[in-house]
Amino acid sequence: MISNEQAINSAGLQTNIQLDCLHHVPHSNWAYLYDKDTFHLRVRTKKQNVDRVFALTGDKYDWETYHDEHEMTKVSSDRFFDYWQTAVRPEHRRFSYGFRFHSGDETVWMTENDILSEEPEAPTGFYDRPYIHEIDLFQAPEWAKSAVFYQIMPDRFANGDPGNDPENISPWGDTPTRESFFGGDLQGIIDRLDYLEDLGITAIYLTPIFEAPTNHKYDTTDYKQVDPHFGDLELLKKLVENAHSKGIRIVLDAVFNHMSANSPQFKDVIEHGEQSEYVNWFHINEFPVKVREGNPNYDTFGFFEQMPKLNTANPDTREYLLDIAEYWLKEVGIDGWRLDVASEIDHVFWREFRGRVKAINPEAFIIGEVWNDSLRWLHGDQFDSVMNYPLSDRLLEYLNSDEMDAETFASHISGLLMRYPQQANEVLFNLMASHDTPRVLTQLKGDKRKLKMAIAFLLTFTGTPCIYYGDEIGLEGEGDPDCRKCMIWEEDRQDRDLLNCYKALIRLRKQYPALRTGDFRFLQAEPQERSFVYERKDSNTHLTVWMNASEQPVTLSLPLEGNWQDYLDNESVSSAEGNIKVQLEPFSYKILIGI
Amino acid sequence: MISNEQAINSAGLQTNIQLDCLHHVPHSNWAYLYDKDTFHLRVRTKKQNVDRVFALTGDKYDWETYHDEHEMTKVSSDRFFDYWQTAVRPEHRRFSYGFRFHSGDETVWMTENDILSEEPEAPTGFYDRPYIHEIDLFQAPEWAKSAVFYQIMPDRFANGDPGNDPENISPWGDTPTRESFFGGDLQGIIDRLDYLEDLGITAIYLTPIFEAPTNHKYDTTDYKQVDPHFGDLELLKKLVENAHSKGIRIVLDAVFNHMSANSPQFKDVIEHGEQSEYVNWFHINEFPVKVREGNPNYDTFGFFEQMPKLNTANPDTREYLLDIAEYWLKEVGIDGWRLDVASEIDHVFWREFRGRVKAINPEAFIIGEVWNDSLRWLHGDQFDSVMNYPLSDRLLEYLNSDEMDAETFASHISGLLMRYPQQANEVLFNLMASHDTPRVLTQLKGDKRKLKMAIAFLLTFTGTPCIYYGDEIGLEGEGDPDCRKCMIWEEDRQDRDLLNCYKALIRLRKQYPALRTGDFRFLQAEPQERSFVYERKDSNTHLTVWMNASEQPVTLSLPLEGNWQDYLDNESVSSAEGNIKVQLEPFSYKILIGI
Repeated sequence: MISNEQAINSAGLQTNIQLDCLHHVPHSNWAYLYDKDTFHLRVRTKKQNVDRVFALTGDKYDWETYHDEHEMTKVSSDRFFDYWQTAVRPEHRRFSYGFRFHSGDETVWMTENDILSEEPEAPTGFYDRPYIHEIDLFQAPEWAKSAVFYQIMPDRFANGDPGNDPENISPWGDTPTRESFFGGDLQGIIDRLDYLEDLGITAIYLTPIFEAPTNHKYDTTDYKQVDPHFGDLELLKKLVENAHSKGIRIVLDAVFNHMSANSPQFKDVIEHGEQSEYVNWFHINEFPVKVREGNPNYDTFGFFEQMPKLNTANPDTREYLLDIAEYWLKEVGIDGWRLDVASEIDHVFWREFRGRVKAINPEAFIIGEVWNDSLRWLHGDQFDSVMNYPLSDRLLEYLNSDEMDAETFASHISGLLMRYPQQANEVLFNLMASHDTPRVLTQLKGDKRKLKMAIAFLLTFTGTPCIYYGDEIGLEGEGDPDCRKCMIWEEDRQDRDLLNCYKALIRLRKQYPALRTGDFRFLQAEPQERSFVYERKDSNTHLTVWMNASEQPVTLSLPLEGNWQDYLDNESVSSAEGNIKVQLEPFSYKILIGI
Repeated sequence: MISNEQAINSAGLQTNIQLDCLHHVPHSNWAYLYDKDTFHLRVRTKKQNVDRVFALTGDKYDWETYHDEHEMTKVSSDRFFDYWQTAVRPEHRRFSYGFRFHSGDETVWMTENDILSEEPEAPTGFYDRPYIHEIDLFQAPEWAKSAVFYQIMPDRFANGDPGNDPENISPWGDTPTRESFFGGDLQGIIDRLDYLEDLGITAIYLTPIFEAPTNHKYDTTDYKQVDPHFGDLELLKKLVENAHSKGIRIVLDAVFNHMSANSPQFKDVIEHGEQSEYVNWFHINEFPVKVREGNPNYDTFGFFEQMPKLNTANPDTREYLLDIAEYWLKEVGIDGWRLDVASEIDHVFWREFRGRVKAINPEAFIIGEVWNDSLRWLHGDQFDSVMNYPLSDRLLEYLNSDEMDAETFASHISGLLMRYPQQANEVLFNLMASHDTPRVLTQLKGDKRKLKMAIAFLLTFTGTPCIYYGDEIGLEGEGDPDCRKCMIWEEDRQDRDLLNCYKALIRLRKQYPALRTGDFRFLQAEPQERSFVYERKDSNTHLTVWMNASEQPVTLSLPLEGNWQDYLDNESVSSAEGNIKVQLEPFSYKILIGI
């Protein structure tokens, strides 16, 4: 038995600092290389529990000579926690570190080994960031940070060449079924590049264009052929060239998780069973291969028997798919790949995929379809980006709700920003809707005020925005197949006011780098309120975005200095007695630019 | 403004469950594939705050048909938290999941998106574990789980061939300096294999044996040559063969972070500067390459100018080193690599290293030298194991302290067990000391009672134990060079009692698989006490280990049923009134085996 006085274990520290909320994980989204010289450290404290936080850094081989401390900035808060961040540029490309927390006159230290009320002897027990290698750096293409994407389903966008239409196409604009074909094609996209240029977008993500039986073509039969209903190799080259000449990049959809059951490979397995040379290309659970009472005896995407899952661990299959990835980069000069059902393919495959894609074009943009927390793929060895459905889920849920308050909304958004390293956030593929969700306007129950707020948020938030074709002119639709209606080209049937809103916001985003790579921070988001304000800020520009998500007009006030200009009406707003006051109509927003 | 009643944000949940302590991270040590069919989930709660926890799992593509719930087991606790774990074997190799927590009559759910007081509609917002690929599975060699390692510095273990001694060697047993040579060699190890077999060890880790100027040989000049003072290729083959014939495996030390400044490659850079064909093999910061006032203008290991750091991102260098890794596996049939300064080499290198090593010998054991939290290397794509200094730090600190209580010690140990997936814990390279630390007996201030406790802990704990040569016969020594004394072979100068203790504990470990792969749990570790009890348990065997780390004898009592046998004196201990009572002398332990 030892006496109470001697029991100096950390759990017994007498302090108001909530020790069980202190959190840091080395080699993670809490500690990552941002660029080849700059390392980011993040740490978490209980919300409003700690006044100041310092990162203590030094060289473990000679702490005495090389050590430093860095005051950390509170960059974010959610419902439970405050998040602090700082940048470290170590002299010898390595450093060890700990943290010091201050609350009133109390001080606590945290190292990898312990939480202490007395200063630990550095660097014993400290966290360690060994030698920093540029080859391990997560670097997304620079252009992606500034891109505004536009997603197109070719069958539904524009029919530029009736000569290649499938048989029995439905009249353009008819209500789509899961089986409908409408005749849209690559020539249609080429014909409408002026429209897209005028809209202001700078990159196109095309859903699959390779030979496949369905209208969506997510069940490839031949990865080396442009689907003849869409065009051919030459036409694809022309599309890429014409787009490039307008400064628009082209990203294609790689469906590597599964193939069509009608592919030659799978048909061979059906026919020859265990003797098939493709037997290891799939996940066959027994022979003969068949579907009994709706249950295939092979693994599929979801429970779709028409989409047998590919065995990407089989070297032949892997090589086949990687060759395809390389082929379209080299042959046509596409600018990247969107990876269908990417989370269900193994990591070994994606690492090799990245290596080979980047060897051909280091600026190729790799976007994985992952609907959940995607950190596993965003360490720099696999994807550049993922489709950021969690963001749209949160935003649309908030705009639709009359129960969620601004604090909760801001808490969710802030939590999302802490999931990934900053360079991932900067190119996260932010979308309000896609071919896999109901249309954004429909999710917002047709309320165009809310749609404009959503788009304003999308285009002023951190990450690469993507617009689903037709959203900008007011297309509506429930889930698949209703969200895959034909684009409307008759101007009198387009919502031109909405279109102008999109255009103006895209222009704004392109004008101010602060909207792309500036700091993001909520300035106001109170409990039981429905309005909120956030800022985007870099060394050149300071923007504030004010949003009222309620049916009541509100007047918001924030302690901001200087003169500001409303980007919509160009009216100027000046600080009075150190405050900026902004009046907002129900479900409306204002964007102020510091002048 | 919305009313209080409507504000259902999670932060406002009225509950005694401490929400800010609930913690889970997908795709991490909290959610990992344990074997090709079994997935482990872990979750954290505030200590003693929650009664029961359930994992709710199902198939996101058809939750209705395929869903389940799994009660989780409290596997561990530390000062702040309880840790819960369960195993999931999903029917279609994929599942989504959430958690449900019970405290009294309160229930709370946690998903990836939220913490809720009402049951969420699954699987919306749930965590996701997409399709499980065996190729992504972290699999360490099966043999490593059962191995008992012995670390040898060849110059200091045994001189079997005076004919290959360096000039001016010191007499065997002299106090070593940093420059001393003693003439130990591979023949010496071969000669002493019977001793090692008798000791009971099943694997040897040899510090570097390739050509190098120093006694420790961590500054290689030629990776393809056995250092002539140690022997030659044929002698190494003989050592491996003879060891294998006794069931003893051999792991060599790969020093790939840096080379000797006397290596032909670095000398070429010194001589030819920017024109050298090896200019990209190192990290040269300016030319001509030189050392000014002790500061080299190239990157080094630590600040050692004699150890220029290798540029492993350079394809030529990488290929050169990987070829060496392959060469010794193929040519000599070694059983694995211990990787020197592994944390300072890039991850791309280590992934390729693993691929190529395992392609030659899937059972090769890869142990990285990483002194800190090593999860980054233990996802299955890099190392099998790391040198577990954090464990010895904790154990020796506890045995030396009269202030740290048992609860704190158990808390630290439990925290370490939660750092990594279970398959990593099972082969973590547990050592009490090495050539880089003072001798364990010296760290314990010469107290052999404490040493025996440390060794008993090492050999009854989860992970692969390693004994530093000579520790077993009572060698003492401060840090380098004092910890690198010559092995003592005269039996009357060896501590035979200590040696017998090591032998008995090694025998015990080999006898009971429960000590290798059974569950580990503290049964008693109270605040302000210095004694503790833990168990190891599998379906066949239940062992309990009782330790008293104080100068007072203690009698411990635990509610355990049945009859037990003391492994030391074979005396049996029976449960009386549902309790087992154990008397412990000061600084002593007992190991009871359920019979």
